[in-house]
Amino acid sequence: MFDAYGTLFDVHSVVELCDELWPGKGLLLSQLWRAKQLEYSWLRSLMRRYQDFAKVTEAALGYACAALELPLDDRRRRTLMAAYRELATFPEVRDALAALKSAKIRLAILSNGSPAMLRPLVDRSGLGRSIGTVLSVDPRKIYKPAPAVYRLAVERLKVPKSAIGFVSSNCWDACGAKSFGFRTFWINRSGAPVDALGAAPDHVIRSLAELPRLIRVPVS
Amino acid sequence: MFDAYGTLFDVHSVVELCDELWPGKGLLLSQLWRAKQLEYSWLRSLMRRYQDFAKVTEAALGYACAALELPLDDRRRRTLMAAYRELATFPEVRDALAALKSAKIRLAILSNGSPAMLRPLVDRSGLGRSIGTVLSVDPRKIYKPAPAVYRLAVERLKVPKSAIGFVSSNCWDACGAKSFGFRTFWINRSGAPVDALGAAPDHVIRSLAELPRLIRVPVS
Repeated sequence: MFDAYGTLFDVHSVVELCDELWPGKGLLLSQLWRAKQLEYSWLRSLMRRYQDFAKVTEAALGYACAALELPLDDRRRRTLMAAYRELATFPEVRDALAALKSAKIRLAILSNGSPAMLRPLVDRSGLGRSIGTVLSVDPRKIYKPAPAVYRLAVERLKVPKSAIGFVSSNCWDACGAKSFGFRTFWINRSGAPVDALGAAPDHVIRSLAELPRLIRVPVS
Repeated sequence: MFDAYGTLFDVHSVVELCDELWPGKGLLLSQLWRAKQLEYSWLRSLMRRYQDFAKVTEAALGYACAALELPLDDRRRRTLMAAYRELATFPEVRDALAALKSAKIRLAILSNGSPAMLRPLVDRSGLGRSIGTVLSVDPRKIYKPAPAVYRLAVERLKVPKSAIGFVSSNCWDACGAKSFGFRTFWINRSGAPVDALGAAPDHVIRSLAELPRLIRVPVS
């Protein structure tokens, strides 16, 4: 089971677009946008004021532009929100998922994204050929790392949690999944320290390419 | 009712000490430490893995030093954690609280800090002369902005929530308190945009000095 944003899909692939709209500010905007998106998802979960991830993402964009004093009109807002439905996958994703699928491992996504955000992303990337189940937190009206989210996956997949391996590039997400009871794989692309949240990931790898070997699947 | 860290006490007053220990890195370390401290408080709350704020603060320091590749030995760790019990108050705090107290307004603190962190901070600053009640989230084993924290204040102060004015320099904290039902004052020291969390602060001010006038208390 895979996280989507940052794990399969590169959220910073919007950097270039941001940089076209506001030359020289693309990286900064992209980073603040992503940081606020996560922060709002945690805060709204704690406040019990869930709003779907498209709205959270748009609110975070509004904040980031205001904080950086970048004028955001309707056209730019629509352009950037559309980009979020067309994120690029990381380069190793396709081959890694194909190797896992050919080993008869069931593949799924468990994401903060709303169904309306996830559908075009999965369709456009062609990942629907490998991934059979796409789950959104939306029915639970709370975001990761609340245990209710990981429990949703157990219920929908109808397998015990010990049979689920959860893969995320967000260390806090891997910690949350480990705390719930999944075997977890943290994709540490940037060489960051592990978060100290009382439940550490079982495996730390640098890219999805290491995954098939690690779970004893022959790589083609 | 006041938030403590960042509202009455300046968490970035540790910048200088950080800079003595690691010249040129003080501001960056201080900012990452604070950001991770908040992030861990939200994540642990969602994961239902509460740990008291001293431990969360120390874990955040460990992460920040590791991420910035700054060697953290026991002596430095103890020195920095001690500094957190000796934070400076913002310059206008003493006079503003004295003016409110002289108008017979009951003053309290509601903080994420553990009792063991808050006690020396309040004692050392002399704020105990104005502030009669110091409440920690600790009995609820969850952090702001969970409604259970704000409810604790209503129960302990034994007044209806509509009679409580809540003051915080953390916009998300003011939003959380507003969402719960307090009249809220956001101290926006840096001129940041308001967070989009579905409940905006009632009042936005630049410092505590504006508070006595705003709630119709004559300023000396």
